[in-house]
Amino acid sequence: MAARSLITGFSNPTVKFLRSLREKKHRKAAGKFLVEGLRLLTDAREMGHLPETLVMATGRERHPLLDALEVEVLAADGNVIECSSEILAKITGKDNPQTVAGLFSEFDTSLAAIDRSISKIWLVAQALRDPGNLGTLLRTGDAVGAGGLVLIDDCADPFSVEAVRASMGAVFTQRIAQARWEEFLPWLRAGKGQLVAASLRDAADYRTAPYAAPSFLLVGNESRGLPEQYEMECDLRVTMPMKGRADSLNAAVASAVLAYAVLSRFEN
Amino acid sequence: MAARSLITGFSNPTVKFLRSLREKKHRKAAGKFLVEGLRLLTDAREMGHLPETLVMATGRERHPLLDALEVEVLAADGNVIECSSEILAKITGKDNPQTVAGLFSEFDTSLAAIDRSISKIWLVAQALRDPGNLGTLLRTGDAVGAGGLVLIDDCADPFSVEAVRASMGAVFTQRIAQARWEEFLPWLRAGKGQLVAASLRDAADYRTAPYAAPSFLLVGNESRGLPEQYEMECDLRVTMPMKGRADSLNAAVASAVLAYAVLSRFEN
Repeated sequence: MAARSLITGFSNPTVKFLRSLREKKHRKAAGKFLVEGLRLLTDAREMGHLPETLVMATGRERHPLLDALEVEVLAADGNVIECSSEILAKITGKDNPQTVAGLFSEFDTSLAAIDRSISKIWLVAQALRDPGNLGTLLRTGDAVGAGGLVLIDDCADPFSVEAVRASMGAVFTQRIAQARWEEFLPWLRAGKGQLVAASLRDAADYRTAPYAAPSFLLVGNESRGLPEQYEMECDLRVTMPMKGRADSLNAAVASAVLAYAVLSRFEN
Repeated sequence: MAARSLITGFSNPTVKFLRSLREKKHRKAAGKFLVEGLRLLTDAREMGHLPETLVMATGRERHPLLDALEVEVLAADGNVIECSSEILAKITGKDNPQTVAGLFSEFDTSLAAIDRSISKIWLVAQALRDPGNLGTLLRTGDAVGAGGLVLIDDCADPFSVEAVRASMGAVFTQRIAQARWEEFLPWLRAGKGQLVAASLRDAADYRTAPYAAPSFLLVGNESRGLPEQYEMECDLRVTMPMKGRADSLNAAVASAVLAYAVLSRFEN
């Protein structure tokens, strides 16, 4: 039932709960995550995602988008909490917090929830540890019209504040699945889908390789890249020219360069 | 003159000095920056850059690359300092510091030091605020064989620990210049060079646009993009397809997708 409340105490249990969501284990236990800032919350709203609870700083400036958000959250039986900017700073852990944050339930991230027929391009990342890279992959996926992002093995949490922020709202548009490699591979092979590794081993030029939709574009861990046995399971290994002394790109960059090349090929 | 020393006190002036380099103002005042970790220091060494001072934790494990570094630093009249890992942690500000760090002099970053004839591709960033993005641009520049990176207006510091780390050593291979727009434009127009903006305004398809070497590929600030008047000064405005709800890419991603497209065109 919709409710409005004012919180004045730092030790309020709701404050403690919201604050706890900065840690992954508490997000997982509660199945909830926090989204900070009017821009991201407005993006989410435009994509049909309203927070269950909206937390606003009392001293905030009025803004029509914030007013609209508040009205819709209450209309959808959500909660609106007002608190001092100091309490909001405690919740978000930032000295200069946004004036608003929203509480969402985490989505179903099982492979079973993925319908691969909705897009010709899917991004896949293995053991990606940087939440900024993860969010950037989601943002890139949105831009190239990918269906979503499959996270293999131990990746950063897509519901962390950093990943959500770097996704620029794409966490709400891209499907996200999380799986071990041992689950992912049988799932992939049970349907149509070409697994493409960004790789240096025995690799084809990424511009001319024979892509076939739906293409699942796999990048590996930031330091170690992909395990060799994973690459060998791929249908295609492709590489980008490396003109300098380095032999690799940032994982989010490699994924984007590859995804745009594949998009171009599928459009022609 | 080469010297070895052991530092045991947290309040040692050298410790205070090295620690101060975490802040930009102290880096600028001293003209020095710190590079952390054996991997980056080995990259630097392979590119002919030895630290003036090498700081090593006393409890470190032996490593042939570290031994080689130590020998070369001493042979080049540099200093080698040993200290406890706690003191190294104080210097780097990390709980789990690398076991080695090196002190370098900042490079000349004036436009006058740039020889544009050495490469067909140059990256340019305006008001780029994220040091990780900046380092990623350097890394991408190395990969596409760019000459270097020109930083326009108030950008993150290329000599910050975060930028150096994200560059994966490319801070030592790519030329770096820093300039205001008012200096950059006359410099550019005084020689051969096409200024290309990653843009949404009046833009050509990035795959088919008429690039001409040397191409200077310009991306803007992470939130605001490029000022309109800057874009209008460009010789070419290009854009990537945007298939989702977003109308932009991460700045480092946009730059990389564009740079790889230009590289492809120049190679054909």
